[in-house]
Amino acid sequence: MSSNTFGKLFAVTTFGESHGPAIGCVIDGCPPGIAIAPEDFAHDLARRATGKSRYTSQRREADEVEILSGVYEGRTTGTPIALVIRNTDARSKDYAGIADTFRPGHADYTYWQKYGIRDPRGGGRASARETTMRVAAAVIAKKWLKDRFGIEVHGWLAQLGGIRPDLPAEAAIDFAVVESNPFFWPVAAQVPELEHYINALRKAGDSVGARVNVVATGVPPGWGEPVYGKLDAELASALMSINAVKGVEIGAGFASVAQNGSEHRDEMRLDGFTSNHAGGILGGISSGQEVTASIALKPASSILIPGRSVNLAGEEVEVRTRGRHDPCVGIRATPIAEAMVALVLMDQALRHRAQCGDVAEARPRLPASAR
Amino acid sequence: MSSNTFGKLFAVTTFGESHGPAIGCVIDGCPPGIAIAPEDFAHDLARRATGKSRYTSQRREADEVEILSGVYEGRTTGTPIALVIRNTDARSKDYAGIADTFRPGHADYTYWQKYGIRDPRGGGRASARETTMRVAAAVIAKKWLKDRFGIEVHGWLAQLGGIRPDLPAEAAIDFAVVESNPFFWPVAAQVPELEHYINALRKAGDSVGARVNVVATGVPPGWGEPVYGKLDAELASALMSINAVKGVEIGAGFASVAQNGSEHRDEMRLDGFTSNHAGGILGGISSGQEVTASIALKPASSILIPGRSVNLAGEEVEVRTRGRHDPCVGIRATPIAEAMVALVLMDQALRHRAQCGDVAEARPRLPASAR
Amino acid sequence: MSSNTFGKLFAVTTFGESHGPAIGCVIDGCPPGIAIAPEDFAHDLARRATGKSRYTSQRREADEVEILSGVYEGRTTGTPIALVIRNTDARSKDYAGIADTFRPGHADYTYWQKYGIRDPRGGGRASARETTMRVAAAVIAKKWLKDRFGIEVHGWLAQLGGIRPDLPAEAAIDFAVVESNPFFWPVAAQVPELEHYINALRKAGDSVGARVNVVATGVPPGWGEPVYGKLDAELASALMSINAVKGVEIGAGFASVAQNGSEHRDEMRLDGFTSNHAGGILGGISSGQEVTASIALKPASSILIPGRSVNLAGEEVEVRTRGRHDPCVGIRATPIAEAMVALVLMDQALRHRAQCGDVAEARPRLPASAR
Amino acid sequence: MSSNTFGKLFAVTTFGESHGPAIGCVIDGCPPGIAIAPEDFAHDLARRATGKSRYTSQRREADEVEILSGVYEGRTTGTPIALVIRNTDARSKDYAGIADTFRPGHADYTYWQKYGIRDPRGGGRASARETTMRVAAAVIAKKWLKDRFGIEVHGWLAQLGGIRPDLPAEAAIDFAVVESNPFFWPVAAQVPELEHYINALRKAGDSVGARVNVVATGVPPGWGEPVYGKLDAELASALMSINAVKGVEIGAGFASVAQNGSEHRDEMRLDGFTSNHAGGILGGISSGQEVTASIALKPASSILIPGRSVNLAGEEVEVRTRGRHDPCVGIRATPIAEAMVALVLMDQALRHRAQCGDVAEARPRLPASAR
Repeated sequence: MSSNTFGKLFAVTTFGESHGPAIGCVIDGCPPGIAIAPEDFAHDLARRATGKSRYTSQRREADEVEILSGVYEGRTTGTPIALVIRNTDARSKDYAGIADTFRPGHADYTYWQKYGIRDPRGGGRASARETTMRVAAAVIAKKWLKDRFGIEVHGWLAQLGGIRPDLPAEAAIDFAVVESNPFFWPVAAQVPELEHYINALRKAGDSVGARVNVVATGVPPGWGEPVYGKLDAELASALMSINAVKGVEIGAGFASVAQNGSEHRDEMRLDGFTSNHAGGILGGISSGQEVTASIALKPASSILIPGRSVNLAGEEVEVRTRGRHDPCVGIRATPIAEAMVALVLMDQALRHRAQCGDVAEARPRLPASAR
Repeated sequence: MSSNTFGKLFAVTTFGESHGPAIGCVIDGCPPGIAIAPEDFAHDLARRATGKSRYTSQRREADEVEILSGVYEGRTTGTPIALVIRNTDARSKDYAGIADTFRPGHADYTYWQKYGIRDPRGGGRASARETTMRVAAAVIAKKWLKDRFGIEVHGWLAQLGGIRPDLPAEAAIDFAVVESNPFFWPVAAQVPELEHYINALRKAGDSVGARVNVVATGVPPGWGEPVYGKLDAELASALMSINAVKGVEIGAGFASVAQNGSEHRDEMRLDGFTSNHAGGILGGISSGQEVTASIALKPASSILIPGRSVNLAGEEVEVRTRGRHDPCVGIRATPIAEAMVALVLMDQALRHRAQCGDVAEARPRLPASAR
Repeated sequence: MSSNTFGKLFAVTTFGESHGPAIGCVIDGCPPGIAIAPEDFAHDLARRATGKSRYTSQRREADEVEILSGVYEGRTTGTPIALVIRNTDARSKDYAGIADTFRPGHADYTYWQKYGIRDPRGGGRASARETTMRVAAAVIAKKWLKDRFGIEVHGWLAQLGGIRPDLPAEAAIDFAVVESNPFFWPVAAQVPELEHYINALRKAGDSVGARVNVVATGVPPGWGEPVYGKLDAELASALMSINAVKGVEIGAGFASVAQNGSEHRDEMRLDGFTSNHAGGILGGISSGQEVTASIALKPASSILIPGRSVNLAGEEVEVRTRGRHDPCVGIRATPIAEAMVALVLMDQALRHRAQCGDVAEARPRLPASAR
Repeated sequence: MSSNTFGKLFAVTTFGESHGPAIGCVIDGCPPGIAIAPEDFAHDLARRATGKSRYTSQRREADEVEILSGVYEGRTTGTPIALVIRNTDARSKDYAGIADTFRPGHADYTYWQKYGIRDPRGGGRASARETTMRVAAAVIAKKWLKDRFGIEVHGWLAQLGGIRPDLPAEAAIDFAVVESNPFFWPVAAQVPELEHYINALRKAGDSVGARVNVVATGVPPGWGEPVYGKLDAELASALMSINAVKGVEIGAGFASVAQNGSEHRDEMRLDGFTSNHAGGILGGISSGQEVTASIALKPASSILIPGRSVNLAGEEVEVRTRGRHDPCVGIRATPIAEAMVALVLMDQALRHRAQCGDVAEARPRLPASAR
């Protein structure tokens, strides 16, 4: 119920402000017996880390995860797993000047309207720093999903401002390429163009939006709960809850608007579905195909170009962001989007098991291979 | 927690299959003292009704709401409100032939994979008939939101296949026009074109997708709960849970991808925000501006053009839908989308009041007028 | 979350007032494939029915259950099961005189304080009529628990006013005897004494309290969720939520206060536990022993002896209950208490399966036989 | 939903094992603006602390609370409040010998049955150490309840083994006396007798049960949610979830069984209720009277007298507890029981405000003074 908790059965509660002593999370409902060590979190946290490259924010966080509970002799015990990361590089002074000013495009004004009080340091709770713990929690989910079902969740940058991957429409994504460049971009040859584009943006003191795609492979049919716990509805909520996200698509998404039914409906043969406009979900339940989603991220509002705003004193002011910020927050949203998809799948897996029994009761399936 | 319940505090639990004895809902947590009579539901249910015009499905339902509980002497008592509508026009014979066949693009295959059993009559629980109760429940929410805050929620068809409203980008919508035609279309002059288009589709036995926009005016700043209960995240979930929806946008949506930060961020002056790319939500909390959302609806899969599929016996078959169906399910999704937005706002209003107190504690606000 | 919903995964939402058109419930999260017919509810509803004997209230309800959804061709489909019972014998006139008066010992005053409005007919939502649907919903739970695990839940009257069963402390209960008399009393020879006692009470226009015991046999070890979802904590909540209940004990209950640890702790041998002071629950998790609970029910406040009270006009008044009432509401609480225990077990069974997998993963157990 | 979270709107999630690195909690949904400092927790934590006197366990914990989030410049911000206490005095070696043995009366066997793995150090998650965080979280709740409504929650030891306070039945409790002795006992003259009794128990290597009473004064009428969220039902769950609790009573509790209705029902006069057998709750909603509860705590199973049990290898063994333990765990349960009552009231206060509006809408009330 609480709004800082994600998931019904695999329930992740996060806490922490950008410049407070620490951020962390508590994972409740985790299956027992999963092997987990502090170092397991390093890979995905590094992928999300802001200091990863000069194309994202320059803030550097050690992001060392301490496991406070729920793991005994290297295995989850079924009790709550608490993870904590100390905030080591929080230069609060950078933000002192804006404590009384509502930055345009930020949550400053709305937090103040809601609570009458806000922590202005680095955006406080509204900072994307919170997403670190989503990625950390999803490490455990990804592990269980992979070990038990062979499920993998992969994201990539599918648009950066006006630039799209130079790929045919239905081309398979090479994730080795995606992981080999700081943009999570699927076409290696375009990386220099992206570098040039981001450098120009940084010089101009501006930012740009992005589109991130995520695909989950290996999801068995039958996951998802009609009617308000539909798999796609929960993916939409999970992805829209990521900072800066303004749109979510499942499968064909907005392209469906101009499609005819004879084109959109995915026909079935004994060797599998003949297409996947549905994004692997029908009636809110997984079909056994790849689950696909796409999100739109707005351009960061923290830019060097001055903006007009108001302050607590009721005056009109000009705001110019200082501190360390991203020309494109969408880039590092890639592992965050993966994390949210993994958390949704993990939760739905447990919910399906609760109502319908374990995998052993599964029914004969169409092969997933024919997409 | 239960997946057929929507909302945390204004909790709407729906039940019923397309061709079962009845559909209904239970509304728990409703504030006491709201004046409600059975006839209050008629207007919005008629807007949603499938038999409204020849441009949507020919099934005719009386859709007469019976109030079974929670209302005493015409006012809500604070106890659960049960609403029931009998299914009076359910011709199950139309669906007899497809009990063992998985129709492409439908939830037949996925329900069977999940549960091992399904009610094939009219799609059973997966039928859009369920949305009738969303609309009914939202009648109460709309009333409270309007009476207490002056909030109004309006939807319109923003695209039908490839046809868009012939309107300038930022033009105000005339809802008198929207309500005057069976397409919820904001430009009266285009209605004949739409009629022609839908008639041609029907003749071809095909269907098409649509886009529906919704705007909520009068929403006070401060509603929405970070971080997983964000107003936009809950709108995304609510709207994606509507049958056939494949995409959700808040504010500028996917157009944000190609925007620069200097363009996207909505600046603030003492007379209000200067733009509304955010869709009235910052950091998951309402800003006092109009809350705007847009959804993509896929073309209905129930079409007369035969489709290839498989059956329970493991054979490849050809499926040709019979019975009564919509060439464009998106049209009647308009009041359903309004309903989901209203339910989200109602629930968030109560949650905000719980944590932060009643309206009396509100802080000074920017005027909403300057968009 | 909603307060008229019981259970997290097997979620039962009840609705309806004592003298409204109907009472009902929606069961969400039910496993698919359970065989259920309308007549399955008759036995337990008859056991609970108020008109069962002249020793309980004279109101007669047909209590015919209509299944509105969630069952197809006699089996649960996994979608919400809606059950409705029409109120056919609601003589509202009996209650007209007390609409403005707060009856002592009833919820009249508190409902009015909470909501500012109340349905005075027969106690409205506060009536024990609501418990009919708990019993109905539990019929499905009992069936699944019995079929899948061999679990049985049995209750009996363990005290009526000052009268206790004439049985040795640890004597086994003969449920054939319990079911053979209208008091659910385990000693047939005492039934005439009870009849005499209740008749005298009725003549005096007074009422008396009761104690009901419930035992669940066959519960496997491992059910229950620490720390706030403990099996005993949820039993306590479930049982205390029954009208008129003022106390709940698990196992030795209040007798534990005067026990020494060397006496209370249940030792273990390879042939099982040597005693069961714990009531089959340790650390909130079932031990595989019998799960035992006991509840105290207050004497009904609806009695013919006039009582002093106040009214809406702020005057002191004298209240004398009319209409049909029970000299001892505790008698018919027996099947209701069974129902709540069954609902708790059902919910915990699904929750255990979600987190820890299906029964196949169970570990070697001590035999339950040695108590 | 998650089982380590208490409360629906004031949601407290606890984590941590007895001998892990730390214990902690996350409080979500807290109203903004409450003044809180780390030292505010000291008083109640000291009352609960095990090393308080030689009459309870000798384990000494600094119990220094660190606030990791949710408080800015000394005030709650409305975002999640994370509290952490490091475990500084965890001598795990004491428990090494029992890793493979199921101690009788403990959760060893049931945790293993549930999860297949358990942290044996000090009882792991099943340790009463977890209750530290309940007390810490309740400090914030008590503060808000006191500041806003004048509510106070007080507990006392009402029975220790066979010893009862030497007080008349309806005597007022002097809480200055209760707080002046290490037994929370309301009669100073009996303290030497208690000391003698506990010393004898310690010498005998045995333990004994206890009864703790709690009263909340100042609770306004109207709190509590029928039918499954009743105030008494939630108190029952909250109190039964405390380690070692085997019984819960509200108001007259089990004494109700032998009462007549004419005696039990609390009559009303314009100067208030004439008695309080109901414990301040009617129909699950507070009446404005004192809310009273009583709990039974079993004798600790960790005693020096050897007990028979079994081990993981399937052998019968003899268990003799070593380490530091309480002859009567019930003594320090007093502040824990207060904490749980405060948490229930806090949560219900927010839930009432959500549905029915703020205190301003309250209705005329009977005075609480006449009990």
